[in-house]
Amino acid sequence: MPTDASKDPHSQPSPSAAAECGCDAVPAGAKGLAPLASALAALRDSCPLMPAERVAVSDAAGRVLAEDVHAELDVPPADNSQMDGYCARVADIGDGAWLPISQRIAAGQPATPLAVASCARLFTGAEIPDGGDVVVMQEEVTLREGEGGTTLAWLPGPRTRGDNIRVQGRDVSKGNRLLAAGTRLDAAALGLLCGQGASHVLVRRKVRVALFATGDELIEPGQPLKPGQIYNSNRVMLSQMLSNFGAEVVLAPLNVADTFEATRDALASAAQQADLIVTCGGVSVGEEDHVRPAIEALGSLDLWRLAIKPGKPLALGSINSPRGDTVRVVGLPGNPVSSWVGGWLFLRPLLGEMTDCSALRELKRLTVRAAFSARTAIRQDHLRVTLATGSDGQLEAHAFPDQNSAVLSSCAGAQALAVIPPHAQLNHGDSVECLWLER
Amino acid sequence: MPTDASKDPHSQPSPSAAAECGCDAVPAGAKGLAPLASALAALRDSCPLMPAERVAVSDAAGRVLAEDVHAELDVPPADNSQMDGYCARVADIGDGAWLPISQRIAAGQPATPLAVASCARLFTGAEIPDGGDVVVMQEEVTLREGEGGTTLAWLPGPRTRGDNIRVQGRDVSKGNRLLAAGTRLDAAALGLLCGQGASHVLVRRKVRVALFATGDELIEPGQPLKPGQIYNSNRVMLSQMLSNFGAEVVLAPLNVADTFEATRDALASAAQQADLIVTCGGVSVGEEDHVRPAIEALGSLDLWRLAIKPGKPLALGSINSPRGDTVRVVGLPGNPVSSWVGGWLFLRPLLGEMTDCSALRELKRLTVRAAFSARTAIRQDHLRVTLATGSDGQLEAHAFPDQNSAVLSSCAGAQALAVIPPHAQLNHGDSVECLWLER
Repeated sequence: MPTDASKDPHSQPSPSAAAECGCDAVPAGAKGLAPLASALAALRDSCPLMPAERVAVSDAAGRVLAEDVHAELDVPPADNSQMDGYCARVADIGDGAWLPISQRIAAGQPATPLAVASCARLFTGAEIPDGGDVVVMQEEVTLREGEGGTTLAWLPGPRTRGDNIRVQGRDVSKGNRLLAAGTRLDAAALGLLCGQGASHVLVRRKVRVALFATGDELIEPGQPLKPGQIYNSNRVMLSQMLSNFGAEVVLAPLNVADTFEATRDALASAAQQADLIVTCGGVSVGEEDHVRPAIEALGSLDLWRLAIKPGKPLALGSINSPRGDTVRVVGLPGNPVSSWVGGWLFLRPLLGEMTDCSALRELKRLTVRAAFSARTAIRQDHLRVTLATGSDGQLEAHAFPDQNSAVLSSCAGAQALAVIPPHAQLNHGDSVECLWLER
Repeated sequence: MPTDASKDPHSQPSPSAAAECGCDAVPAGAKGLAPLASALAALRDSCPLMPAERVAVSDAAGRVLAEDVHAELDVPPADNSQMDGYCARVADIGDGAWLPISQRIAAGQPATPLAVASCARLFTGAEIPDGGDVVVMQEEVTLREGEGGTTLAWLPGPRTRGDNIRVQGRDVSKGNRLLAAGTRLDAAALGLLCGQGASHVLVRRKVRVALFATGDELIEPGQPLKPGQIYNSNRVMLSQMLSNFGAEVVLAPLNVADTFEATRDALASAAQQADLIVTCGGVSVGEEDHVRPAIEALGSLDLWRLAIKPGKPLALGSINSPRGDTVRVVGLPGNPVSSWVGGWLFLRPLLGEMTDCSALRELKRLTVRAAFSARTAIRQDHLRVTLATGSDGQLEAHAFPDQNSAVLSSCAGAQALAVIPPHAQLNHGDSVECLWLER
């Protein structure tokens, strides 16, 4: 005869104490806490690589190159003038000569071959006429009227061939590799592509993400708060982080009815539209939650207890998509700081893997001086810090005063995560390794 | 009787040698090269502050707060449970007691006052019922069936009041300042606002920029290249930089007819739509260029020769707008690296000033070890570098191999500008000050 007790998850074996978020499950067979590296390896294992697509360079900011880009043009494309001045032949100038101005070449205009014993008036960036081998800057040149309305220029000599000429291919030689596959395109990279005349570029498709930042106690900002409810911080925050990391949030449902069937159908629908499903909170809370059984009905889910703080619990799974492949599921903890840290530690590298992007795949490590002290127990801690140069010129990490895992004020403006290993006592002035939160 | 010579700008006094970009003008009265700081001061002088506007939090990423944000709610809004377990009174538990489960409280559900000598089954985040003063974690609790289908829970004792309870306001107390005016909103800041229930936020209007990255020799990517022409790198690159720095490019004409009247009309029209006009190249090239006389006809323009590299020439001016205020004009050099460096050194701080944004107003300075050597003459150099931790754990700056001011490959992926003062010899291993290029 069933009772409350027989339905209670507590009546099932529960291997450990609850974390700050209430998650207490472990992957089958795991003993104790798993190191971060094992979870990252599992996360990366067999995740799909996004296909390549061609997009306009003007829309490609933040996208990841899917192929090496080689120079198709010399830059400059022809010899040109480094300054406003006069182009002539060194031999015609000799020790100085009056030469008639036979043509005038502005930047962007074609030049005609330089007439014998003449000079060309030209401007910065203008093409060097065939036959010309030196440019004399205008400040050195004297002009006078010649016969029949012509103008003569005095070019002092002697001169050296090539002076003030930027030779074809000096800056970029045709065939050189300009950008490597896996580069995330910043403004300068876009400029480099434009300089080669490229209007389109082959990049990885954006990872399409379905985000389930839901929970019965959560309501959306702008609504009145009822007893027991809290506002949903994670939906907007994680959407923005995913977008910063180059993904496209294609689905972020506000409400999924609180039944197993509705949850399963929502996840199945997400698996049709998305390359990645991110859930936030709820996965392991027990009888109240339908996300875990729904994922297990559609695929598989491992729950990890990681030896890290904040963010001990992490769910990794996959759902069999109707396309025949599998869609990866990452379940982040529900409390805001843990979910923010999880975004940096797990979502960013996963998105890097799925787009083959070197910069996203790993957070850069910087060793700096700690301007704080910290002590850890069995878990590696990740303190939110800003970086600044100390009075002696050395780079210092300053920890936000409140490292409470429920308070996002320690994350807004954070520039790095200071990594404090387990069982450590870090003193003010010690070196500390930081993960640099590059946007 | 006019001749070529009389129309030639060279026949007018020209106070200095040409720079790498062909700009050779100086502000009236200036002697020699001006330091960067004077130009920055001139740039910031009397620039307008953008008005405030209210936008949806979900659209506010990268926007600058126009007011301090104080907590309007306690977080958590009421005492709640830190874990899945059972809530009771310490006095009822004593040294351990069997207590009937009188209610079940999930997160998000309202609690009723705790019945005398009973306990409540509850889950992480659930509200503590009135009268309850401790939570016992479920792993410590044993259950058995009581009479009439009730369930009894054994709560071991003694207990301490408040254990496993997150008290109201522990994370955020109502009235506390959460975010300061001038903060640029990142994902975590948006989460913090959402956690307070804010659906809208007061931010500075985006600076509206008209971008004139034009020049007779420039053609747009995707078009065939004719002799004398080069592709326009700067238009897409500067548009992206301006957007990264929080501005909105409202106008970036592809072609302005090459006459004084058309240029003046285009600038006058830009001054109607924009808060800032950015030009790139051409301002000082001489007779070919109409931008300078057009700006001077509509307002004023100072040409600066700065003691910096790359990017010596800088034009600063203003146009009287039809609104009655003045619109600032910044003229960057035309070569791509100079214009990219100018974006960081001039546009970013100017946009920070116009939006009162602390993070944009100054590039953060980091002192690190140089993994390169460099020598300067009379100008301060700005080498494009990446940052990495050396084998001894110290942070190092690595210079891109080609620092040629026409080659954007030294800018794509650069993380900092290493500042080498004038007349300096920097050796491998010396400390070097870097401006951190935070995106």
